[in-house]
Amino acid sequence: MSNLTNRRIVLVSRPNGAPRLSNFRLEESPVPEAGDGQVLLRTLWLSLDPYMRGRMSAAQSYAKPVEVDGTMVGATVSEVIASKHPKFEPGDIVLGYAGWQDYAVSNEGALRKLDPKAAPISTALGVLGMPGMTAYTGFLTIGQPKVGETVVVAAASGPVGSLVGQIAKLKGCRAVGIAGGAAKCQYLVEELGFDAAIDHQSPGFADDLQRACPSGIDIYFENVGGRVWDAVAPLLNDFARVPVCGLIAQYNMTKLPRGPDRTPQLFRQILTKRLTLRGFIVTDFNDQAEAFARDVGSWIRDGKIKYKEDVVEGLQNAPRAFIGLLEGRNFGKLLVRVNAPSGST
Amino acid sequence: MSNLTNRRIVLVSRPNGAPRLSNFRLEESPVPEAGDGQVLLRTLWLSLDPYMRGRMSAAQSYAKPVEVDGTMVGATVSEVIASKHPKFEPGDIVLGYAGWQDYAVSNEGALRKLDPKAAPISTALGVLGMPGMTAYTGFLTIGQPKVGETVVVAAASGPVGSLVGQIAKLKGCRAVGIAGGAAKCQYLVEELGFDAAIDHQSPGFADDLQRACPSGIDIYFENVGGRVWDAVAPLLNDFARVPVCGLIAQYNMTKLPRGPDRTPQLFRQILTKRLTLRGFIVTDFNDQAEAFARDVGSWIRDGKIKYKEDVVEGLQNAPRAFIGLLEGRNFGKLLVRVNAPSGST
Repeated sequence: MSNLTNRRIVLVSRPNGAPRLSNFRLEESPVPEAGDGQVLLRTLWLSLDPYMRGRMSAAQSYAKPVEVDGTMVGATVSEVIASKHPKFEPGDIVLGYAGWQDYAVSNEGALRKLDPKAAPISTALGVLGMPGMTAYTGFLTIGQPKVGETVVVAAASGPVGSLVGQIAKLKGCRAVGIAGGAAKCQYLVEELGFDAAIDHQSPGFADDLQRACPSGIDIYFENVGGRVWDAVAPLLNDFARVPVCGLIAQYNMTKLPRGPDRTPQLFRQILTKRLTLRGFIVTDFNDQAEAFARDVGSWIRDGKIKYKEDVVEGLQNAPRAFIGLLEGRNFGKLLVRVNAPSGST
Repeated sequence: MSNLTNRRIVLVSRPNGAPRLSNFRLEESPVPEAGDGQVLLRTLWLSLDPYMRGRMSAAQSYAKPVEVDGTMVGATVSEVIASKHPKFEPGDIVLGYAGWQDYAVSNEGALRKLDPKAAPISTALGVLGMPGMTAYTGFLTIGQPKVGETVVVAAASGPVGSLVGQIAKLKGCRAVGIAGGAAKCQYLVEELGFDAAIDHQSPGFADDLQRACPSGIDIYFENVGGRVWDAVAPLLNDFARVPVCGLIAQYNMTKLPRGPDRTPQLFRQILTKRLTLRGFIVTDFNDQAEAFARDVGSWIRDGKIKYKEDVVEGLQNAPRAFIGLLEGRNFGKLLVRVNAPSGST
C-alpha cells in the first residue's frame, strides 16, 4: 500500500425510485500499489451519465449492476501517478473507467492515452467521448438523415442531444430540440443553431412541438420516453426512424403507469406508419470510433460544433449532482472535477 | 351497359369489433361496358386477406377505407371478357384489384397479364403474389437472417408465415412456427419442414415456445401481436429483429386492454436488448418484385417451397370466409372461387 488515502463513493443500497443521498456513502481507504504491468491513477475528471442509474439497480440490463458496497462505476480522465507498464509514465493523462474515487489501479488495456494539446482533456468524457460517439453513431447509423428532413431530439441541451441537433444541421435537416426551461431552449437556438427548441415544462408542450414541426418528424432521437414520446408519436411521418438511446424519464419508475395498456397502439403506429424503432448502446458501434473522432474532431476545430460543460467541484458532491442529472438540473455535460493535475499550482 | 348482371358485396356498416355478416350485403347491378382503353373483367379468384379488416374501419391507416355502400376491395385473378385496349384480348388472364364482385371494368395500368402455363393462376394471389412477396421482402430485408439463427413466425400456416418459415430454413435458420391447433402444427413440421411448431391455443403456450427456442429468438416475424408477442418478447435475444407485418390479434379490438400501461416496458426491452422493430407494407419493397418472382418461382419449381390453398366456393360465401379468416379458421391461403373460366366445361 502507498501512504495515500483514497476517497471513494460506494453504493449503500439500491434506490427505490429516485436515488437519494442515503444510497451513497463516501469512504476512505488506503490506496493500493500498482502491480507489474499496471498503473496507479489519480482521477482528475469523473463523468456523470444517466446510464449509471441502471447500474444502481439489480434489474437485468446490458451491463452488470454495481454491487452493494461496491464503488460506483464511471468513466474518468486521470493522471498516471505511478507506472509499472512501459507504455505509461507519471504525468500521462489517460481516459479510463476508474469510477467514483480519487485513485485506482488499472491495467493497460482499460486505458487510452490522451494528448492534452489536441483538445481539453475533459472533452474525452463528453463531446469527444462516449456521449459524443453515442450521438454520432446512433443518429447517423439508425437515423439515416436526409436533407430537408425534420429531426427532433429530447434532452437536447445534454451532451448527446446537443450533438445530435448540431449534426442534424450539418446534414441539412431541420433540428428541433426539446429541453427543460427557457434558458436551455434559448441556448439551443441562439448558441447551437437549432431551428426551434421546445420547453417540455410548458403546459402547451405538445402543441408547441406540433407547431415547430410543420412537416412532421422524420427522425426522433429518443433519450427520454414517457410524455415526451407521447407528444412526438402522433407527429411521426411514415418511415420515421427512432434511435432509442435512453429513457431517462422512466429510469426512476417504480411501477408501470396506470392503464389502459397502450402497447397495441404503439404496434399499430409502427405498422401503419412503417416506423423503425431501434435500441442501441454506443459500444455496438465501436467500429465507427475512428470515423467519429475524425469527423467530430474536425467539426469542433472548424467551429461547426459547440459543446457545454457543467462542472461540479469535488468528489463528495458527485451524489447530489447525479441526483440532479436525473431531474434535468444540469446544463451541459455533467462533470465532477475530482482532483487538480499534479503540475497545477 | 351490357346485359350481364354483376353481383358485388358492399360494406353496409363499419364493424364494431369483429365483423358480422350484417356488415356486408350482396347486391346485383348491371355490368358496365369497357370504355376506350379499358377492359371488362370477370372475376375467377378473389383473395381474402387480413388487411381488409383495416379497410372496413374509418381509422387512419396507410390506405383509404372502403366507403359505406362501396364494394369491398380485394385482389383478384380475372378473365378478360371484352377489351378496348390493344394489349388485352378476351380470354387473357390478369391479376388486378377488382374487389368482391363478378365483373369490373379496369384500366390497363391496374392489371398484370398472367401466363397460366407458368403456374396455377391462383398462386398470383398467394405464394407468388402479395402474401408471398410480403414474406420474402419483410423477412429478408428487415429480418436479415444469418445461418444458425432462430426465427419465429406467427400465423405460420398462413400464406405469409408459411413462406417466412420455409425461407428461414433455406437460409440455414431454425424455424419455429406458431399456429392454432394440432393439424396446422403437424403440417408445419411434417409438410413444410419447420423445426418446431407451437399451438397458441395450448395452455402451456409460452412454456412450449421457450422450449422450442433453446437459444432464444433472433428474428420474430410479427403477424399477430397481443399474447403471442407477450410470449415472444422475453425470449428475444440481443440485436433481435422484428419485422412488423400484421397484427391480426388486435384488428377487431374495440378498446385498449386494461392496464398497467406496458409501453415503458416495451421501450426498455428495445433499449436494453437493442431490438429493431420495423413496420412495413409490401408495396414499400416494390423494387424487389423481380428478385422475389425469380427466387420464389425457382424455389417452387425445385420443390423447395410448398404452399397450401383454402378455397371457398362462391362470392356469396366471401363474408363468412373473411370473418373466419380473422378467427384463424382458414388453413392455408384463403381464396374465393368466384367464377369458372369461360373455357371450362
